[in-house]
Amino acid sequence: MPAAEILAIGDELLLGETVDTNAAWIAQRLAREGIAIIRKTTVGDDDTAIRDALAAALARTGVVLCTGGLGPTRDDLTRDAVARLYGREQHVDDGWMTVLRERYERRGIPMPEVNRVQALLPDGATLLHNPTGTAPGIAIEQVGVGLTVLMPGVPSEMRGLMEAHVVPLLLRRLHVARPIRSRMLRTAGISEAALAERIDDIALDLGPLSLAFLPQVASVDLRLTCRGDVADPDAVLARALDRLKERLGDCVYADDDTDLAVLVGRMLRSDGLTLALAESCTGGLVSKRLSDAAGASDFLLAAFVTYHNDAKRAFVGVRSETLAMHGAVSEQCAREMAEGARTAIGADVAAAITGIAGPGGGSDEKPVGTVWYAVALSPDVAGRLGHDDPFITRKFVHPGDRSDIRERAGQTALDMLRRALTSQHSVPHP
Amino acid sequence: MPAAEILAIGDELLLGETVDTNAAWIAQRLAREGIAIIRKTTVGDDDTAIRDALAAALARTGVVLCTGGLGPTRDDLTRDAVARLYGREQHVDDGWMTVLRERYERRGIPMPEVNRVQALLPDGATLLHNPTGTAPGIAIEQVGVGLTVLMPGVPSEMRGLMEAHVVPLLLRRLHVARPIRSRMLRTAGISEAALAERIDDIALDLGPLSLAFLPQVASVDLRLTCRGDVADPDAVLARALDRLKERLGDCVYADDDTDLAVLVGRMLRSDGLTLALAESCTGGLVSKRLSDAAGASDFLLAAFVTYHNDAKRAFVGVRSETLAMHGAVSEQCAREMAEGARTAIGADVAAAITGIAGPGGGSDEKPVGTVWYAVALSPDVAGRLGHDDPFITRKFVHPGDRSDIRERAGQTALDMLRRALTSQHSVPHP
Repeated sequence: MPAAEILAIGDELLLGETVDTNAAWIAQRLAREGIAIIRKTTVGDDDTAIRDALAAALARTGVVLCTGGLGPTRDDLTRDAVARLYGREQHVDDGWMTVLRERYERRGIPMPEVNRVQALLPDGATLLHNPTGTAPGIAIEQVGVGLTVLMPGVPSEMRGLMEAHVVPLLLRRLHVARPIRSRMLRTAGISEAALAERIDDIALDLGPLSLAFLPQVASVDLRLTCRGDVADPDAVLARALDRLKERLGDCVYADDDTDLAVLVGRMLRSDGLTLALAESCTGGLVSKRLSDAAGASDFLLAAFVTYHNDAKRAFVGVRSETLAMHGAVSEQCAREMAEGARTAIGADVAAAITGIAGPGGGSDEKPVGTVWYAVALSPDVAGRLGHDDPFITRKFVHPGDRSDIRERAGQTALDMLRRALTSQHSVPHP
Repeated sequence: MPAAEILAIGDELLLGETVDTNAAWIAQRLAREGIAIIRKTTVGDDDTAIRDALAAALARTGVVLCTGGLGPTRDDLTRDAVARLYGREQHVDDGWMTVLRERYERRGIPMPEVNRVQALLPDGATLLHNPTGTAPGIAIEQVGVGLTVLMPGVPSEMRGLMEAHVVPLLLRRLHVARPIRSRMLRTAGISEAALAERIDDIALDLGPLSLAFLPQVASVDLRLTCRGDVADPDAVLARALDRLKERLGDCVYADDDTDLAVLVGRMLRSDGLTLALAESCTGGLVSKRLSDAAGASDFLLAAFVTYHNDAKRAFVGVRSETLAMHGAVSEQCAREMAEGARTAIGADVAAAITGIAGPGGGSDEKPVGTVWYAVALSPDVAGRLGHDDPFITRKFVHPGDRSDIRERAGQTALDMLRRALTSQHSVPHP
């Protein structure tokens, strides 16, 4: 299998001040093309360290993708180090200089002098156009040395360069034979251990496929992988996937990498339904997730982050008696929040979340992690979907710290919506 | 300087399906103690690969921190591989078995049988109590082999184990001499290039210190680092920090790792002020960020995610004429959203964000990335803070994709709030 290495450059990575999301993205993108990342190395902003690591990586695979260290400042040393390793002088690329000047003009700002160095290019190297950033990508190759590609460390810029230039370049340069095939199953409302028990016999009987559990904070994905010489791997994968889906039933929400929020958005859009949210302990997280994808304005009418009890009363019509008798973290409050949010803006569907994210605020009766959920449907929609009751409520006691609890609460609310929007509706299990 | 290595285990890391945030956190945490991470290696869920990589890492530094592969399922091989490398049998730890059973009982769920393997412990190894997860940490040491620590891959569990057990263990085990000292400056409302120009002369005159620019999507941090033998490094760092702060003025919002949302929360709390938000294109992101930290209920009364124009009219009182004449992405709409949100719940301060996050919806006049911001202050608060005008509005055209634009918009709104809450108020520059 064709192989490449990743060299991530930056003191901030070595000291842990920045999390390197680029290496994972690149590995995943190239695995899809059948190119394996066989090693990831991280070095600091140090000329010698960059050259040593790059030379060693080139000696192993002959193809190295570097990220970072292409900024305009004194600690950005990558381009100089690479030019030195390849024994090349550098020249100003007039085309890129013009691009930079025009961009600053359009934003009405004079171009800072320091940006000039970003138009320098090692002789004989290829400039890869970067539509959003000031540092272009650079590809440089020499017989007996190998191919090095330089990309900025800003994730969106790196991704743009990969798609437009680097992936096509690698496919031409390497000879890709039989890609690794893999398929995902995404589950919600079931724990890793319960999932493992339910499919244990299938897991032992997968023939040439391997099965991996990918537990995240708020959900567990399964990945089936087919490597090596299998006749018709897509059919083999599809058959195994069908067995797992049949066994897991409504716990499966996707057989690709679809995000649960994206899925809920699609279900609402395709049913022509509108949504309102009332969030308390999640503080806007569900609304943010639903609007991460473009087009949320098709269904998301409004979200009320009713953090304070006054806001619960004023904007989503929670009754004072409810708060006094049951407290804000109660089935009754969640139900009134959902119905209040739904009717306030005239939405077809609403979800409400009210709980204790911690670290403070817990009690014996309602420990930290206690979250009440409610989904409210308009009578018309409830009828159409075959729900006898237009309200679905559920309580979970989520484990973890504040951030985990909020993430789990967001995922659970989305899963409640997904299940409510499915005709044969169901509720998630702890 | 004492050194250790990190071994991250999991197919999902090698294939890029999960981003490894643990390595960065561990590196940062240990750098504070003067322990350097000199290499990071990632291997898949493969018994031989784990043992080979661990043996090589132990041979280099004698201290290896492993994360991942301790789950209850068939692809979790770490504990077995390590027991084999150290030549140890395994036994059931009765104490941990009791802990597991009690936890499941408290949640009212029977313990899945597969969790049993998580109570296995290599003979002679030390079990490190994990208060939130089902896999304990494990420390195992042998003269001539070295020390290996196993931790779960779930970030919150790993962090808990590090703080409670692993950091103290490493400090006892290694002899920490002179830690690397570093200080941060966090800036907002200034680009990396503009920042570099403004402090170029200081950057050249820092003596034994090194200066790094840490550009993120929505802001740029500076890090000053002091390594090696410098007398009174804290004083040297503090002097350099003061020079930078004086030069950069109101662009600096923190000289430690304080998050901008946390800072704004603190300013509101210490001034006894309450906040309301009206978010359109950010979809709840600012509210989520402010409530990520505990205690947001002290100041955050409510947030309105007025995604739809009907919601802008109904809940924050934007006038139909404003929408018809100027559109939703306009100074007038932002101002009415802020004032409407503020008065609806009777808050002291409100911020509003309305813009075009893209990829669609842009025009020549209002391209994708155009965002209008408004901060509204109650007359009383405006007077107290010395603002002549209780409204502060500002337009930015942010570069990047939808996710970048939303992140930049969230940061800019928080920066507007920070500046508005400062007596000598100012506005951010593009």
